[in-house]
Amino acid sequence: MAQRFSEDELIANLFAPLAGPAGLDLLDDAALLPARSNPIVATVDALVAGVHFFPDDSPASIGKKALRANLSDLAAKGAEPIGFLLALALPPDWTNDWLAALAAGLGEDSQGYCCPLLGGDTVATPGPLTLSITALGEAPQGAFVPRGGARSGDAIYVSGTMGDAALGLRLRRDAALRERLTPRSRDYLLDRYLLPRPRLELAPFLRAHASAAMDVSDGLAGDLAKLAKASGVGARLTVEDIPLSDAAREAIEIDPGLLEIALTGGDDYELLFCVRRNCSQLEKLARAQATPCARIGEIIAGCGETTFFDRRENVLNFNKLSFSHF
Amino acid sequence: MAQRFSEDELIANLFAPLAGPAGLDLLDDAALLPARSNPIVATVDALVAGVHFFPDDSPASIGKKALRANLSDLAAKGAEPIGFLLALALPPDWTNDWLAALAAGLGEDSQGYCCPLLGGDTVATPGPLTLSITALGEAPQGAFVPRGGARSGDAIYVSGTMGDAALGLRLRRDAALRERLTPRSRDYLLDRYLLPRPRLELAPFLRAHASAAMDVSDGLAGDLAKLAKASGVGARLTVEDIPLSDAAREAIEIDPGLLEIALTGGDDYELLFCVRRNCSQLEKLARAQATPCARIGEIIAGCGETTFFDRRENVLNFNKLSFSHF
Repeated sequence: MAQRFSEDELIANLFAPLAGPAGLDLLDDAALLPARSNPIVATVDALVAGVHFFPDDSPASIGKKALRANLSDLAAKGAEPIGFLLALALPPDWTNDWLAALAAGLGEDSQGYCCPLLGGDTVATPGPLTLSITALGEAPQGAFVPRGGARSGDAIYVSGTMGDAALGLRLRRDAALRERLTPRSRDYLLDRYLLPRPRLELAPFLRAHASAAMDVSDGLAGDLAKLAKASGVGARLTVEDIPLSDAAREAIEIDPGLLEIALTGGDDYELLFCVRRNCSQLEKLARAQATPCARIGEIIAGCGETTFFDRRENVLNFNKLSFSHF
Repeated sequence: MAQRFSEDELIANLFAPLAGPAGLDLLDDAALLPARSNPIVATVDALVAGVHFFPDDSPASIGKKALRANLSDLAAKGAEPIGFLLALALPPDWTNDWLAALAAGLGEDSQGYCCPLLGGDTVATPGPLTLSITALGEAPQGAFVPRGGARSGDAIYVSGTMGDAALGLRLRRDAALRERLTPRSRDYLLDRYLLPRPRLELAPFLRAHASAAMDVSDGLAGDLAKLAKASGVGARLTVEDIPLSDAAREAIEIDPGLLEIALTGGDDYELLFCVRRNCSQLEKLARAQATPCARIGEIIAGCGETTFFDRRENVLNFNKLSFSHF
């Protein structure tokens, strides 16, 4: 096996360049963040090779996906990133080049999303590569957008398009389906699975207008049910109002069963949020965001029930609502 | 296999009871910490079954060890705990009872160390159990104790006794040695490996008096070299001044080669710190702490060199300075 970095070398060569001032060049036991006047928002997500990504995905995309999954949670709370901590469990076969590419991907996103590395721990594992990232962010006092704030009468919105990543995952596993899609649609869906786009650009809009929000990481149907339950309300959606990409439409046209995958599969990393229906400009404002947002339904009285209708008022039932780890 | 909790159930039943107010009952995407006037100290440590603990250790002790390893880093920086986030990757064979015991152990420590759960992520892994904990703490402005603050002439101290955990680990693997120790010494060393004691009670003392500090997690020799390097100084120690427990002395008497294990093996989780030698009361003060601290050497000019002398001024050389992950 090629020569490999020692623990100190890999920190100094690959990860210290990602550290912000609070990371103290990764030479101390802990990071030191200056006192802040805003409340701190903290979230953690772990990704395991073979579970949350394919072991042969490019290392840069693996690093990016791990960070972006966390940034998506910050965005959903209306928070701006402060920085992140990384726990990396490396399987026996890692190489310097592979790890350098992962660090480079992480570094690009760390810069691009203004989210410097604060600290880390690198350990050996006999198991699969595991990345656990804790992201810290901040939101002005009172601006944190809770999951449980939806009220009857609120309008329900989502950012971007739904189901692309779940269909991308399906494509990774289904060569026949891959063949039937146009290359453009295929590449689009595969990329949406590989690289989430955390919607941090919507955080200010959410802070200003959302009564409740979460990111859609385990499938729209299940995540909406979680939001409704946390808020003590119900929800009704019109399926035709749910925004789908052209690529997703193409796939669903080939196999209508894929609609269920799109609405219950994970990894969208789009935002699901509710707004009080008292602002006539809101619809326009939502659509005019850098990432357009679409109204897909409304909050009604209830206890976590969600109902998906089609235009003819037929109810859609799903086999299961969302991705489950166990 | 017995019925197992769903992801939602295990969060609600096992982990939500550990959450502080900032954890929002683990029902939201992120934790929300009120704005604080102190700087935030953040650290992360990952523990892998079969690497950092034995898979058949009691689940309560596994949970405790993971949290305590992090609390030890906070203590070394003179910080008080705020809370922690947990990423838990569960192998295929987990059971409700096992996980409940792990959560109960974590809960005891969370209460005992005033460090509530802020958030978490539970995922499945085909590999070994992996716990990654991020701990947040705080220290008053200017009170953070850096690793790189030691200056020539500073006295070097450690808390507690050195090498017990490394000898405990050796005992786990060496039945013959286990047989030769008195039961009392054997149990003491095994327990010191199983359950670190993070020295949070020393944090105020460190804030007041230490020029530099770190926790001893990878072996005294290697960790002192790290502190010296970060500070741009050298260090000289007198081996006979290094505090050893009676149990460690007994083991080393049986096999003198174990001294090297004691000084270069990991998992002490004691504190290593330096103080300016301008306070005649300091020695007395250090010994009078709830956990006594002993002076073991002094900082000299240099670039990270550390030399261990015995009373006859012979130099001790070690095969390797510390535990290395790779």
